[in-house]
Amino acid sequence: MASFHPPCFHTTIIISCVVFILFFSPALSLQEPVLLLSNETHLDADDSEVRKTELFPEILRDEAVGRLNELGQVSDANGYLERTFLSHASVRAAKLISKWMEDAGLTTWVDSMGNVHGRVGGANPSSKALLIGSHLDTVIDAGKFDGSLGIVSALSALKVLHVNGRLRKLRQPVEVIAFSDEEGVRFQSTFLGSGAIAGILPVSSLHIRDKSDVTVQGALEDKSIEINEDALSHLKYDPESVSAYIEVHIEQGPVLESVGLPLGVVKGIAGQTRLKVTVKGSQGHAGTVPMSMRQDPMPAAAELIVLLESLCRYPENFISQNGQCDASVVDSLKGSLVCTVGEISSWPSASNVIPGQVTFTVDIRAMDDMGRAAIIYELSNRMYQVCDRRSVSCLIEPKHDANAVICDTGLSTQLKSAAYAAVKKMAGEDISDVPVLMSGAGHDAMAMSHLTKVGMLFVRCRGGISHSPEEHVLDDDVWAAGLAILSFLETQM
Amino acid sequence: MASFHPPCFHTTIIISCVVFILFFSPALSLQEPVLLLSNETHLDADDSEVRKTELFPEILRDEAVGRLNELGQVSDANGYLERTFLSHASVRAAKLISKWMEDAGLTTWVDSMGNVHGRVGGANPSSKALLIGSHLDTVIDAGKFDGSLGIVSALSALKVLHVNGRLRKLRQPVEVIAFSDEEGVRFQSTFLGSGAIAGILPVSSLHIRDKSDVTVQGALEDKSIEINEDALSHLKYDPESVSAYIEVHIEQGPVLESVGLPLGVVKGIAGQTRLKVTVKGSQGHAGTVPMSMRQDPMPAAAELIVLLESLCRYPENFISQNGQCDASVVDSLKGSLVCTVGEISSWPSASNVIPGQVTFTVDIRAMDDMGRAAIIYELSNRMYQVCDRRSVSCLIEPKHDANAVICDTGLSTQLKSAAYAAVKKMAGEDISDVPVLMSGAGHDAMAMSHLTKVGMLFVRCRGGISHSPEEHVLDDDVWAAGLAILSFLETQM
Repeated sequence: MASFHPPCFHTTIIISCVVFILFFSPALSLQEPVLLLSNETHLDADDSEVRKTELFPEILRDEAVGRLNELGQVSDANGYLERTFLSHASVRAAKLISKWMEDAGLTTWVDSMGNVHGRVGGANPSSKALLIGSHLDTVIDAGKFDGSLGIVSALSALKVLHVNGRLRKLRQPVEVIAFSDEEGVRFQSTFLGSGAIAGILPVSSLHIRDKSDVTVQGALEDKSIEINEDALSHLKYDPESVSAYIEVHIEQGPVLESVGLPLGVVKGIAGQTRLKVTVKGSQGHAGTVPMSMRQDPMPAAAELIVLLESLCRYPENFISQNGQCDASVVDSLKGSLVCTVGEISSWPSASNVIPGQVTFTVDIRAMDDMGRAAIIYELSNRMYQVCDRRSVSCLIEPKHDANAVICDTGLSTQLKSAAYAAVKKMAGEDISDVPVLMSGAGHDAMAMSHLTKVGMLFVRCRGGISHSPEEHVLDDDVWAAGLAILSFLETQM
Repeated sequence: MASFHPPCFHTTIIISCVVFILFFSPALSLQEPVLLLSNETHLDADDSEVRKTELFPEILRDEAVGRLNELGQVSDANGYLERTFLSHASVRAAKLISKWMEDAGLTTWVDSMGNVHGRVGGANPSSKALLIGSHLDTVIDAGKFDGSLGIVSALSALKVLHVNGRLRKLRQPVEVIAFSDEEGVRFQSTFLGSGAIAGILPVSSLHIRDKSDVTVQGALEDKSIEINEDALSHLKYDPESVSAYIEVHIEQGPVLESVGLPLGVVKGIAGQTRLKVTVKGSQGHAGTVPMSMRQDPMPAAAELIVLLESLCRYPENFISQNGQCDASVVDSLKGSLVCTVGEISSWPSASNVIPGQVTFTVDIRAMDDMGRAAIIYELSNRMYQVCDRRSVSCLIEPKHDANAVICDTGLSTQLKSAAYAAVKKMAGEDISDVPVLMSGAGHDAMAMSHLTKVGMLFVRCRGGISHSPEEHVLDDDVWAAGLAILSFLETQM
């Protein structure tokens, strides 16, 4: 049984909790943005030719959209998109991305965690490198923009420089990395790719097993990649060799769409905890054990899931405000806390057998790390009480924990200027400020923040829907993303 | 959406519901039984040799126990017992059983639903046949006695007659059938084997699909068995060719153990309904959709499972007694109703995705058919209300429905006498009456009751535990079961 300590009151020092601007309240977090671009940009005929020379629609929009569609077809499943860590489709995706990297004038390689790298030395190959990345893996039944957009838009921008002979003018090396695992679907452990490069991936990660009992190490060996403790430690980049990490990603939320803007700058990323909850009872025949004599883990698990939902919808009813946690923590939780049970299974899983065991996952995210810890403490305490009352055993195992990440202010300012420049070029007129928002979704930038300063750009997605085949980004927003990265790179010359 | 009508009040005729002796209240249902045999029978040395000639321990105990152990090793899984309809292990088990049938002097064949038959004509091969059967399939992570004991004990008894040259003295044909499917694990539809022979299996059953999208027909074709509508109808036995069906089965409940008896006679089998519940919501990213904006099918499904448990634990709080249902129905439900959710799954099943869909099974059993219908009506109404409130869609599909079965009185009296004779022989002294009890578990006898009169013997199992590797029957109780069938067959000469 994992033990959880009261987080807001576990030492005599009361730590005041940082309160972030709530990403669900765009009115608070955005600096009165105005409509920069309508859903589809239409350039006036008389100036379109002039600006097209700076806008590169063939590469930054048409080719980029084509590549996203092509990558979206690279799937392990028939009829929907699924590309998990080191699957057959992931290997095919890596080869495709590698080809696009070469097409952008980059030198490519695949490292021993399956990450795909493409690098250009620029004018000073030995100086600190700017890293740009996102992930090539997907969830099951995924959309085609999550992860892929960050890789494709960076490569499109670099291709523009390559085509125009300007790569060598970059005053520092630029390296694009397509990370092999961010979603954590196959091994229930996120950031296998970026975590290795940031040096935060423990050796024990190599021995995590998937549902087919294959370890991470075994999965790499199946693809003829030898990995051991030494090889893993060599993957870690020297912080002295890196200047910054930036990432473009779809917002996966409703803010940019609601304010009618194609791009936003990310101020920070919510902290995350993933738990695995195992409820064990007494297996038996569905027809012969009276209801009153059952130790059935299924209704117990159901009660725990209903409890989790209540706690996360109304944290103020559960988290004490009388000195244990600051009122600002509770306020932050009320605005940002989200909890999800995405996976559930029973054993032995037959309709006429009272299960012996039910297992489910819990994903908890909040802007406030202290508040998130308080929720986990409260949740686990109440879960154990339910299990005690029902005479079933509960095991709550932390599987992943990442604190909230604050993006680098200087980098964010640069990205904001780049986004501003890009959108202004596309709109052909002066525009208002680019919005700043928080991310409820985790990104490789969380892992990379352990290595270097990070910055992120968000791209509008339809209905805020992600992790679903309904996920969609407008062609012109793909274009805006590429143009923003291009503008950013132009400041690095 | 399946529609359910109020069952106790759906016509102007109020049907009074039959109340069965409650199988969970042995004190009510048993005629003051006394201890017939201790957990292990020890015969006195001075009379053991005499009685051994009538008790056949080498065949009825030692060989039978050996066969149960051997059959218990025939599994599709490593480390636990799993043998579902037409799996590789099922085919191996069928071959083994066929060999044992031949060893008992029976003529054998496998029919086009995978049932294994062994028959002896006796003195009048053209008269009506006595059928004895049970099933060769198992649940997942099963015990080795459920189903197998009925097949093995029948074959052991017939082997004794064969060895002693008495098979030809049987005044009617006797046919042992090892049914290919009773548990319904693979196709979520029980009695594929006995249902075909009883003529109650609809043609549509051939097109049911398993989790790998293989149909029943496809599974049979994989084993080179051609089946179509005609072949299926030919499987049905002519009721005029059959005199009765009897079955030995482990009790799978706690009654016989609690009263210290090896055998009991079954008065009836509880009715069953199996439902599949599908809850559909709005799939999305676990980090970006605020709790208040979710249409999450997971907590909705959890609430439905908690509701089901409450309804089945306390039916009196849900089923109205004011004229809708007779008070005796409610009393019967209070004593016998059991409800189980054995299987649950989510789609797309990733810890960081709000599921788009959650599906679970519901197994409902009760002694009173009208009461069971009332529960299903109440349950479905309340489930739809929960789903409406949560803005998710619910689909409740009936997958199996079998009314309670009452065993034939004459046959039960004969089986009771046979059990009495067997236990008396083993105890070496006069004994009290054999108990009569109800079955909460379904058995092939339910299907066979549509063809002919049925009777059943129950055998004590440790702790009442079944559908679990913990399932256990004492060697001497296996012996008692074989001896009872032998005694029964001796009355057929």
